[in-house]
Amino acid sequence: MTIGFIQNSPQFGNKEANLRDVTKLATGLTCDLLVLPELFATGYTFTHRDEVYQLSEDVDGMTIQTLKELSADSGAILIAGWIERDGDRVYNSSVMVYNQQVIGNYRKIHLFNRENVWFSPGNREPQVYDVNGTRIGMMICFDWFFPEMARTLALKGARILAHPSNLVLPWCQKAMVTRCLENNIFAVTANRIGSEQRGEDSFHFTGGSQITSPKGEILISAPTDSAYVGVVNIDDSEADNKSLNPFNNLWKDRKTEYYSL
Amino acid sequence: MTIGFIQNSPQFGNKEANLRDVTKLATGLTCDLLVLPELFATGYTFTHRDEVYQLSEDVDGMTIQTLKELSADSGAILIAGWIERDGDRVYNSSVMVYNQQVIGNYRKIHLFNRENVWFSPGNREPQVYDVNGTRIGMMICFDWFFPEMARTLALKGARILAHPSNLVLPWCQKAMVTRCLENNIFAVTANRIGSEQRGEDSFHFTGGSQITSPKGEILISAPTDSAYVGVVNIDDSEADNKSLNPFNNLWKDRKTEYYSL
Repeated sequence: MTIGFIQNSPQFGNKEANLRDVTKLATGLTCDLLVLPELFATGYTFTHRDEVYQLSEDVDGMTIQTLKELSADSGAILIAGWIERDGDRVYNSSVMVYNQQVIGNYRKIHLFNRENVWFSPGNREPQVYDVNGTRIGMMICFDWFFPEMARTLALKGARILAHPSNLVLPWCQKAMVTRCLENNIFAVTANRIGSEQRGEDSFHFTGGSQITSPKGEILISAPTDSAYVGVVNIDDSEADNKSLNPFNNLWKDRKTEYYSL
Repeated sequence: MTIGFIQNSPQFGNKEANLRDVTKLATGLTCDLLVLPELFATGYTFTHRDEVYQLSEDVDGMTIQTLKELSADSGAILIAGWIERDGDRVYNSSVMVYNQQVIGNYRKIHLFNRENVWFSPGNREPQVYDVNGTRIGMMICFDWFFPEMARTLALKGARILAHPSNLVLPWCQKAMVTRCLENNIFAVTANRIGSEQRGEDSFHFTGGSQITSPKGEILISAPTDSAYVGVVNIDDSEADNKSLNPFNNLWKDRKTEYYSL
């Protein structure tokens, strides 16, 4: 199967322009799975909770409508970060869209820094979705810092971690090699580029979107400073074989009786 | 405090020579914690279980006697890999020696490859030892592959992971950056160099012993092909502050209710 990402450069608050930009980047693209960054349509650096609410949407909003169109045009399972509105709460979420349907949604459970002010923390267990012959788990950006997150999704059977991100710390891309090795899983980390300086925050986003294999190979790595579309061909079933050698199997070797977690 | 490692090049089966060699490398050294590689006195590549048994010892054997002398001479808590005999069982263990006492012992729970033939798997919960003003957890080589191991030791209060190793895979040194970041902990990975070709196995050991900080800095990295003694000065209490910023604390942020481990 073919899996890919779009690395974009959102203009803060300008959803129409950002959706148009991503649609343009995806023109002519066909693949089986396509991952977009965290909050790809809105930007990241908020100054007030009202601003976040104004930019939030439900499943009938323009962001998910655009993702449905991108999915139809590319044939891909589309996964992307969005601001999800649910009553008076807003979540930093990742949605999965395929075949004109919302297949799944994940509300970020490990909020980073002032996201704790802007968003409600995820209140649902992370799930793995069985879709179009593969199994996908979603995690968002800072979730990488907690090994339990990728582990949970891998133990639930995910072959691929779809990982929309807005990375500002220098470590994630290298850490994903460890995450993929320790779980024998693929990961698509879709990051954004550019800088935002608003209110008390100033962020530079590191680009370098990356697809990593279960053997820790970086199959593709995007530039740090330009929009980019990356697609690779993989055999996702490689993620199912947790044996490293005739004596080691990553799942059977776990000594849960000696862990204190 | 000062923490360090000795990277040696054992001759297979020649304990006297290996102990002499390490004693020579440690001449004049003073520090607070000193970590030696996994199986530093025996070599690694066995061909028969009898051979392992012949090289095994109990706490009255020459290896721990030498470690007591090294500890007395250097003033250090000494941590090193050894073949521990207990009745007719042998374990791939790491011992902690200080002030003429055996303070602790850890029996490797994640055995790598044919180690599963040579050794009994560890049958005790990994512990953290409160010794001389710091707190140390021991893990051995391939234990790094399982994030639960470092996590368990960190959650039990370790400030420093003492990590005797005989690394033959290419990933550990980089992965230790992730292990230290995700747990905000120091790690001393003491590796060996050289090659062993015996029986069905042929191994090249990668050297590159490394001390890593809670912020993922590689404080010292040994060469890949020569014996080496590395010591750095650290403030081990840095490991106690699990806050990344005013909104994130690595321990408080763990969402154990959503993990399936």
